[in-house]
Amino acid sequence: MAMLAGIVGFRGYSGVELQKILAAHPRTAPVLLEHRADSAPEVRPLGHEGPRRLPCQADEVAKAGIEVVFLATPPEVSMDLAPALLEQGVRVVDLSGAFRLRTAERYRHWYKEEHTQPELLASAVYGLPEFYREQVKGARLLSNPGCYPTAANLAIRPLVAAGVVDRAAGVVCDAKSGVSGAGRKPSLKTSFCEVTANFSAYSILNHRHVPEVLLNSDLKEREFSFTAQLIPIDRGILETVYFRAQGAASAGDLLDVYRKAYRDEPFVRLYPAGSVPDLHAVARTNFCDIGLRYDAATGRAVVVACIDNLGKGAAGQAVQNMNLMFGFGETEGLL
Amino acid sequence: MAMLAGIVGFRGYSGVELQKILAAHPRTAPVLLEHRADSAPEVRPLGHEGPRRLPCQADEVAKAGIEVVFLATPPEVSMDLAPALLEQGVRVVDLSGAFRLRTAERYRHWYKEEHTQPELLASAVYGLPEFYREQVKGARLLSNPGCYPTAANLAIRPLVAAGVVDRAAGVVCDAKSGVSGAGRKPSLKTSFCEVTANFSAYSILNHRHVPEVLLNSDLKEREFSFTAQLIPIDRGILETVYFRAQGAASAGDLLDVYRKAYRDEPFVRLYPAGSVPDLHAVARTNFCDIGLRYDAATGRAVVVACIDNLGKGAAGQAVQNMNLMFGFGETEGLL
Amino acid sequence: MAMLAGIVGFRGYSGVELQKILAAHPRTAPVLLEHRADSAPEVRPLGHEGPRRLPCQADEVAKAGIEVVFLATPPEVSMDLAPALLEQGVRVVDLSGAFRLRTAERYRHWYKEEHTQPELLASAVYGLPEFYREQVKGARLLSNPGCYPTAANLAIRPLVAAGVVDRAAGVVCDAKSGVSGAGRKPSLKTSFCEVTANFSAYSILNHRHVPEVLLNSDLKEREFSFTAQLIPIDRGILETVYFRAQGAASAGDLLDVYRKAYRDEPFVRLYPAGSVPDLHAVARTNFCDIGLRYDAATGRAVVVACIDNLGKGAAGQAVQNMNLMFGFGETEGLL
Amino acid sequence: MAMLAGIVGFRGYSGVELQKILAAHPRTAPVLLEHRADSAPEVRPLGHEGPRRLPCQADEVAKAGIEVVFLATPPEVSMDLAPALLEQGVRVVDLSGAFRLRTAERYRHWYKEEHTQPELLASAVYGLPEFYREQVKGARLLSNPGCYPTAANLAIRPLVAAGVVDRAAGVVCDAKSGVSGAGRKPSLKTSFCEVTANFSAYSILNHRHVPEVLLNSDLKEREFSFTAQLIPIDRGILETVYFRAQGAASAGDLLDVYRKAYRDEPFVRLYPAGSVPDLHAVARTNFCDIGLRYDAATGRAVVVACIDNLGKGAAGQAVQNMNLMFGFGETEGLL
Repeated sequence: MAMLAGIVGFRGYSGVELQKILAAHPRTAPVLLEHRADSAPEVRPLGHEGPRRLPCQADEVAKAGIEVVFLATPPEVSMDLAPALLEQGVRVVDLSGAFRLRTAERYRHWYKEEHTQPELLASAVYGLPEFYREQVKGARLLSNPGCYPTAANLAIRPLVAAGVVDRAAGVVCDAKSGVSGAGRKPSLKTSFCEVTANFSAYSILNHRHVPEVLLNSDLKEREFSFTAQLIPIDRGILETVYFRAQGAASAGDLLDVYRKAYRDEPFVRLYPAGSVPDLHAVARTNFCDIGLRYDAATGRAVVVACIDNLGKGAAGQAVQNMNLMFGFGETEGLL
Repeated sequence: MAMLAGIVGFRGYSGVELQKILAAHPRTAPVLLEHRADSAPEVRPLGHEGPRRLPCQADEVAKAGIEVVFLATPPEVSMDLAPALLEQGVRVVDLSGAFRLRTAERYRHWYKEEHTQPELLASAVYGLPEFYREQVKGARLLSNPGCYPTAANLAIRPLVAAGVVDRAAGVVCDAKSGVSGAGRKPSLKTSFCEVTANFSAYSILNHRHVPEVLLNSDLKEREFSFTAQLIPIDRGILETVYFRAQGAASAGDLLDVYRKAYRDEPFVRLYPAGSVPDLHAVARTNFCDIGLRYDAATGRAVVVACIDNLGKGAAGQAVQNMNLMFGFGETEGLL
Repeated sequence: MAMLAGIVGFRGYSGVELQKILAAHPRTAPVLLEHRADSAPEVRPLGHEGPRRLPCQADEVAKAGIEVVFLATPPEVSMDLAPALLEQGVRVVDLSGAFRLRTAERYRHWYKEEHTQPELLASAVYGLPEFYREQVKGARLLSNPGCYPTAANLAIRPLVAAGVVDRAAGVVCDAKSGVSGAGRKPSLKTSFCEVTANFSAYSILNHRHVPEVLLNSDLKEREFSFTAQLIPIDRGILETVYFRAQGAASAGDLLDVYRKAYRDEPFVRLYPAGSVPDLHAVARTNFCDIGLRYDAATGRAVVVACIDNLGKGAAGQAVQNMNLMFGFGETEGLL
Repeated sequence: MAMLAGIVGFRGYSGVELQKILAAHPRTAPVLLEHRADSAPEVRPLGHEGPRRLPCQADEVAKAGIEVVFLATPPEVSMDLAPALLEQGVRVVDLSGAFRLRTAERYRHWYKEEHTQPELLASAVYGLPEFYREQVKGARLLSNPGCYPTAANLAIRPLVAAGVVDRAAGVVCDAKSGVSGAGRKPSLKTSFCEVTANFSAYSILNHRHVPEVLLNSDLKEREFSFTAQLIPIDRGILETVYFRAQGAASAGDLLDVYRKAYRDEPFVRLYPAGSVPDLHAVARTNFCDIGLRYDAATGRAVVVACIDNLGKGAAGQAVQNMNLMFGFGETEGLL
């Protein structure tokens, strides 16, 4: 019988993606948890009413037999909802930034507000399975990574760990994202006429996803320059990573670093040396695709990493984590 | 009376833009020079036949009283057409890469073909007025800069010249362009379905525009990493430039470098420290807009420079150069 | 000396377009009239502060020497502001629907609210110069037509007047608009992710622009079917009009109807029989382009009419009307 | 064991969609049949080589155990390949227009070339399962419907059959399609810069899909006006259908016509009276969604029908037909 999986924030872009994945997943059935009344009822075809709905109350959720709840909510809402669910024995996969930064101080610094559940931070597991698979399996509170850091860490961490990055010269990550990454709440910045035929940079050097990269890739702030930018498309993240390589005689050497790191990873795909992925390659998948070019004569290296920000960057990775937490096959519902 | 200005390649995107600018320009009237028969005749409204047309033959061009010809053509066509026009006393503004790299060797290396008019290279003037205004005024063969190098040089050269760039750490230029930069000839890479909802990198580290940046900004190849990328929009270039600053205590110090360099420049606009332009700011203009962020504590600096690739990146700049070559007001027809 | 022209709602899409046209117009200088405080101050390049600003108070407006005010505002704001301005002798060009429907009853029916200035309705002139040029010249309160009705009336009215439309079979107008037609206020319906890769119909048969077509084209409601639809682009309206022709032996006969109607019109362009315009043909212009196909054997006729909804559909036409009202050349600032 | 299903034209947009559906289908495994050498080898991630490939020769196809071949090819190629495959006992699902029009005369008239396999026309089954399910089950040569006619027939045929359409007034079908409908071959008309920020009509009144609608909906040419139009999106078709209703007292009455026609149909979804679908509702599905508005007082009715042109309009419907031909569940691999 299908495991019941609740979704809070099911109308948001990550929430809708979770609905789709969990409905098609062989092991789960989604339940939509109403957290706030929605004034604009959506139009649905006759006879296609969609998943069951319940009010989002921890005791009722537990009573209904829901074993995991995905919080596709802002961090302050996640901090609000997580404790009661955990107390009821319901496992939580949180897609917000609430539990990603390990300490309340760091959260305050980057999110400009107090952390209201600091005691939960220690037990939260950062859900990047490629690096923390064993911890993920035992998680009760799973903190799903940010979209930008997912691609950045998958691109950068193995290189830093292998010592092929000249840290003195620094690492540049020029990141571009589709608009769904900004959420579904209407704003001028994400209005069609403002975004179309445009391209813009924001949060240069101070995006709140920066500390997630630093914490997991072992770079220091002074070694890492990050710019977030808006592409006029709905979904997809492409990150262009620049560094000076050391100890690598060829592109193949750098590629070998990735090959070793991701040998058995089902969701990381590598490209032949000199070739790089584009966003179409990963659209509506849970893959992170990585390719690179390297000019050995000058040491200049460029890595391109692509994900779907709603797939591996949010809902897809959240389900990958759920699969690990509940002992399902890691790729079930995701290939 | 209006000066006659010929356009070869008037159906291409730069050519159409030239048509618009020259038709509205108070000093000029465009003449369309047919170089190759066009199989698909365009539909035009009744009574709106557009500018006069002539075959593209140097002697007839001169006889018709055309004083300047814009070559919006591939480099091999430009090399083919320029000599006879110049011999006839017609000045030439070439929008191709044929005469930008100063030597036949460099051209061969980056364009993978022989230069057929090496003797013209010495007299060709590189038309970036902000740096070479006096030479432009006397040019008979004007080599209009590439779109990417225009933004890159305007962003980078003053910083390098002022000594605020840590050259050992290198300069990264992550460049993004609208699709019109690839020209109007149909290809799979610029087909709608391939480009829409996508974002892709190409010519990583080996784009033929790289030497134009090196030659004019005084950077060495090993100090400069450049990636070209395709945005799913028709026009606009945004370049994000990363470097480690030295000798600058604040963003204001870096901004001052630009202020000095561009004090009297009509087509370079600077943004308040911490603010950066987007593509809407420069769409259908001849402006290059520049803004920056700087973290003095770590030395990380990021500059964002925007142009319209068909404006300051091609046709607009070509007309700016024409204005200078013929003693018109530099901004005539461009504001 | 330039005539001062005020703009209320200068941050909206029509308002920004008015700013551009009036700043480049040889006879006018725009003044921005602040009606409501704007919380998000826009970023502008240093030294490019834009036009002068004044608070929007009728007496101050008059005192400042402003001779005409453009109201790019919702109808309720236009009704609020127009009387005091008119009393001060300032002429008003209203871009809202407040004064288009001739009677307060009709306004109530279609706009679902009371008209607060019914006494002004009689003197308001409907500013479609192709049909009401003489009245426009004497207008003090000019009601600028809606975007959809501008194209629809230019396409339909001459045909109905010439008697070539089989009214029993009815006229279908399938209208498509870019998103700027919905205004700049953020809403889910105009959010990038909702609009991109989408196409949707709205206000089928009951759009508030329908009565503007009926009133000016002499069709009855039962003879006219109208659907508004959203194209994922920022600007442009294309309307496909279907009818059964009578008394026309060929496409040329139908084209002749238009030729007679628009012989001296500077802003209506006709296409050769069988050819039709697309949105690129009219983008950023004040033209209405019209083409048609006709199958004489079966009587089926299809007309395609295109405008830029911010040009001939709003700001451009408003300036065309201003030109007539103040005795300027009708095309000044618009070609 | 999975049934082997060959695809000719697997690089085209319909072909790629077929690859995806057949690879995920529980009953099939795709085999790519190389018909012409492809000069530009695609880049694939290491270790992800995709399906098996074979040369497209009928005897080898049969020998390899392939039981059905999908022809995602131009009509002349389909006419070329189908006979030999059929002779080998391989069933054929043809996505081209080669076998849709029942007679060689009609093909010649609309496709402007001779039909080379007229003897196959009689046995070809038109694969619109909602109307021809029983014939589809026995088909050996299945002619998959055109994208526009699929939506048009599903919208129109039940209404005509029920007698609620005033045929004297005629039926208008204003059709809009994403660009993938034009195929993957590069052309100026489908180049990104020509399509983006544009909307255009083509083949007005004489599109080759018109006879498919007439043949299957029982309308006469003089009763049916059809315009095809290009939306700047990659996939999706929305058709707005206008007619005068007779014998219907309310929108509910018209909806009942559809309810009866599609009571048990898994891939047609109806909307509540007054609501209509948009393209997001059907993107990447095999659904046809239908909604309508009706003004009983004047008899004006408007139906909106949406499909994904690569789903129900091509590859999805082709697989639905295959499911019926081979006795699989009709929805297998499609929900």
